[in-house]
Amino acid sequence: MEDYRFSDHQLYDRLVKHAQTMHGDDHHLRQLIKADQRMAEFSAIGGGIFFDYSRQRVDASTMRLLLALADAAAVMDQFADMASGKKVNVTENRAALHMAARSFSDVPVRLDGRDVKPDLKCVLEEIRTFSETVHRGETTGSTGQAFRHVVVVGIGGSYLGTEFVARALEAFADKGISLEFLANVDVHNFGCIWSRIQAEQTLWIIISKSYTTAETMANEDLIRRYMDASGLDPSKHLVTVTSKGSPGDQGAGQGLAAFHMFDFIGGRYSVSSAVGGVPLSLYLGYERFERFLKGAEEMDRHALEAAPTQNLPLIAALLSVWNTSFLGYPQTAIIPYASPLCKLAPHVQQLNMESNGKSVDSAGRLLAEPAGTVIFGEPGTNAQHSFFQLAHQGKAFPIDFIGVLNPQYQMDEGSFKGVGHQQELWANMLAQATALASGRKSENPAKSFSGNRPSSSIVLENLDPENVGRLLAFYEARTIYEAFIWGINPFDQFGVELGKLTAGTIRSEMAARNQNPGHDFAALDPINRAYLQMLFKGKFPG
Amino acid sequence: MEDYRFSDHQLYDRLVKHAQTMHGDDHHLRQLIKADQRMAEFSAIGGGIFFDYSRQRVDASTMRLLLALADAAAVMDQFADMASGKKVNVTENRAALHMAARSFSDVPVRLDGRDVKPDLKCVLEEIRTFSETVHRGETTGSTGQAFRHVVVVGIGGSYLGTEFVARALEAFADKGISLEFLANVDVHNFGCIWSRIQAEQTLWIIISKSYTTAETMANEDLIRRYMDASGLDPSKHLVTVTSKGSPGDQGAGQGLAAFHMFDFIGGRYSVSSAVGGVPLSLYLGYERFERFLKGAEEMDRHALEAAPTQNLPLIAALLSVWNTSFLGYPQTAIIPYASPLCKLAPHVQQLNMESNGKSVDSAGRLLAEPAGTVIFGEPGTNAQHSFFQLAHQGKAFPIDFIGVLNPQYQMDEGSFKGVGHQQELWANMLAQATALASGRKSENPAKSFSGNRPSSSIVLENLDPENVGRLLAFYEARTIYEAFIWGINPFDQFGVELGKLTAGTIRSEMAARNQNPGHDFAALDPINRAYLQMLFKGKFPG
Repeated sequence: MEDYRFSDHQLYDRLVKHAQTMHGDDHHLRQLIKADQRMAEFSAIGGGIFFDYSRQRVDASTMRLLLALADAAAVMDQFADMASGKKVNVTENRAALHMAARSFSDVPVRLDGRDVKPDLKCVLEEIRTFSETVHRGETTGSTGQAFRHVVVVGIGGSYLGTEFVARALEAFADKGISLEFLANVDVHNFGCIWSRIQAEQTLWIIISKSYTTAETMANEDLIRRYMDASGLDPSKHLVTVTSKGSPGDQGAGQGLAAFHMFDFIGGRYSVSSAVGGVPLSLYLGYERFERFLKGAEEMDRHALEAAPTQNLPLIAALLSVWNTSFLGYPQTAIIPYASPLCKLAPHVQQLNMESNGKSVDSAGRLLAEPAGTVIFGEPGTNAQHSFFQLAHQGKAFPIDFIGVLNPQYQMDEGSFKGVGHQQELWANMLAQATALASGRKSENPAKSFSGNRPSSSIVLENLDPENVGRLLAFYEARTIYEAFIWGINPFDQFGVELGKLTAGTIRSEMAARNQNPGHDFAALDPINRAYLQMLFKGKFPG
Repeated sequence: MEDYRFSDHQLYDRLVKHAQTMHGDDHHLRQLIKADQRMAEFSAIGGGIFFDYSRQRVDASTMRLLLALADAAAVMDQFADMASGKKVNVTENRAALHMAARSFSDVPVRLDGRDVKPDLKCVLEEIRTFSETVHRGETTGSTGQAFRHVVVVGIGGSYLGTEFVARALEAFADKGISLEFLANVDVHNFGCIWSRIQAEQTLWIIISKSYTTAETMANEDLIRRYMDASGLDPSKHLVTVTSKGSPGDQGAGQGLAAFHMFDFIGGRYSVSSAVGGVPLSLYLGYERFERFLKGAEEMDRHALEAAPTQNLPLIAALLSVWNTSFLGYPQTAIIPYASPLCKLAPHVQQLNMESNGKSVDSAGRLLAEPAGTVIFGEPGTNAQHSFFQLAHQGKAFPIDFIGVLNPQYQMDEGSFKGVGHQQELWANMLAQATALASGRKSENPAKSFSGNRPSSSIVLENLDPENVGRLLAFYEARTIYEAFIWGINPFDQFGVELGKLTAGTIRSEMAARNQNPGHDFAALDPINRAYLQMLFKGKFPG
């Protein structure tokens, strides 16, 4: 394993060669999907999810080679190492134990010899107790009114996963509490939320591991001043989710409660921790949050234990690497045919692109080619009426279709053209996957469809909390398996440092000008100098 | 012009060669942006917008070659032809007159000899009158209650542009009316909206040019039945936006009003027509919708009249083509540093990808390489905490940054680290563009930034209705100019046909099974047959 390098491995070369044969006309998806056993051979059920890759551009040889590569990279051993508390985040010397946050078994998970599960369990109990006292109206704001609005104050990994789960389970939100997200330092974001809420009925959840995140701290400051100015006691309207001992963990006086997060769970993997637990328990009730965790746990066990040939996240990861590094697709779309999953693509966009958008391997050596892929998406059928023109006749990209057998709403759907809404939705999802794969020849090039455009289909039996947990855990495990195949570390993010550093320089120049109206930004390059002049004038030059 | 073919043109070959020189180290953006006059040379103000492309990978020669290509393709003549009513949508034998819908001048626009402007004016007057009677409480639902909820029922071009504008101008929505979008046939979409509204206070706007769009018609059917079942008269709660004489233009009895749309304005260009006009006038007030139109008109005049070297949408289009076809970037991100612009990327995603994701030129000949590019994006700084790891250290892609000098909300921003929220936001936007361009060398490959990652910056003085109109018109004109450079028709979308056709086949099989429980889907391929069995059982096989 130590000398595994993705693009140096002999299986890499074999896969490059093999990809050439897959470009042949006899390997067009139109041909491949004709085989009677195609779907049986290229699909699997596991962890509560059905995964069909019969419309990916693979054959039995492809899968053999890819699975051999996974074996060469010892990806399942690495996954087990991660689960057992080894410091797989080597660059930051940290473990990656998001799965421990949803492990309800008695098996300890030791980090530096100490079981982390009691601490996690303790936080979970605090979340349960706190959310229940809020729901019973025992914990209130400073005027004694019950909380009706909860605002998550956090950015990136501190809100995207929670937003995905909250939207997915909105149909279950029966606690009379609305959930808003204040992520951006953009004053429009605060202004808009402030105009929507009643301050005396609002609970703010400030989420930051270090309690130094610039956007979140600037918003915390704004919130305290606005609550104060409204005659409310901010400390009675605020809880924090932060590391033990951080500036956000200062006990009574600061807020109603502080829920701990741990450095062995990274932001983009943190929805199962207090980061998701506090807001989701308030919004949906603790029981539903626990059901969500148990669904995720089921998928974790599958990812950890299922044989490679039946292991959904591993197979999905191999297909990502195949599509990206061997077939050369530069992006992947996620198209859920279920409106409640509307925030899945933005969540996976962060989860995956921040984890795997890297140029160095785990040992810090430059990769032959950067890893990772761009991820984007919108729900179907909406996407069909938006960018599917390009999906069919522009440059091709692979798609994850996601279908749900039984919707959350049992409506009287009636019958339009002989089918109900749910059936119409499915007819469209299946039709898109079929049309993209098969294409259609026509004398008229404008009406020709080259086809051979790959997709996977992921099916859930319904959209209950367990299944949303399974889906989240599937994409987490897939992301990590991808990283292990590419040989990179999915848990660090040094790529965000330079921007922060540069922002600091520009911020200092602004602060100097705020102090001294004569300050001329001479320390900056000419372009940024011109921009600061424009910004301080509030209008275009000239 | 008739024999212009993008990839056959000698300027194409020269640009291919020129791109090689731009890959040299001496043409790294780190070097290019050092020039004192860089920003003055590579920026322009026009149509009320500031456009800075100093951090694109271009030099004076690049721009000369690109402008010569624009000249060779006679793009400004084509744009003028479009504006004057010529049938530039050659495959469908239609004009493309979205600009006429916001032309307040007296100059006629003749289509087949007849001025289209009186008809457009007439619809606009109907919109004004209708929205004003709703706001005055004179037009009400069937129980006499004022309308408090407006639901747009339409998909793709019938809602994405309106959603963008509505979110951008939410701060101006002072009519006591909420605006929802029912696009998808997904029953979750209807179920969720139905749970949020009071039916007796709801006005449904059914938008479909042909009044045959499957999703919209299925939803119209559902709406009528649910309103009926609530004891309300659907025809008193519904207006249509549709073509004259369509099945949605059947006069009293069908709805409160029918507003006409015309076949010379395509869906994705239709927000200036009744498609946007009816919902936006109800939500924001007619006056603000007219201000929005006037902003768009200003940009239209600029796009039509400004010299190529100063023409923002044309320059932006040339840069798109340069980045896509010569530098080989497979996607572009749109990152507005202004939360109200959160729906700009989804709108432009449709506008641009549906217009330009094509494999044939206007004459129907196969292109050497498909045109168009994938567009995605989220607001900054959120995006920095999401996928910017990949933007900095993964495979590069160009970015449109969008900044607003004066925010909509005048809050007491206080001072955090010596700057206000709006300043902090700008510090971040400028820092990202700078860091992506310059990069940073380091001994440690994990902390190295290769830089040379291009971006444009688009600046608005504020986010009033005029500026939102200008921005919309900028992206429309840019999309069209791109198409003219590639030599394609941006107004048709034959690529969506095959999916519709295939959905029809699958729908028929479902309908047959609804009629006859013994129907076995034998007409379908094995994969789709397996899916329909799964769907009708409501659970996974086995």
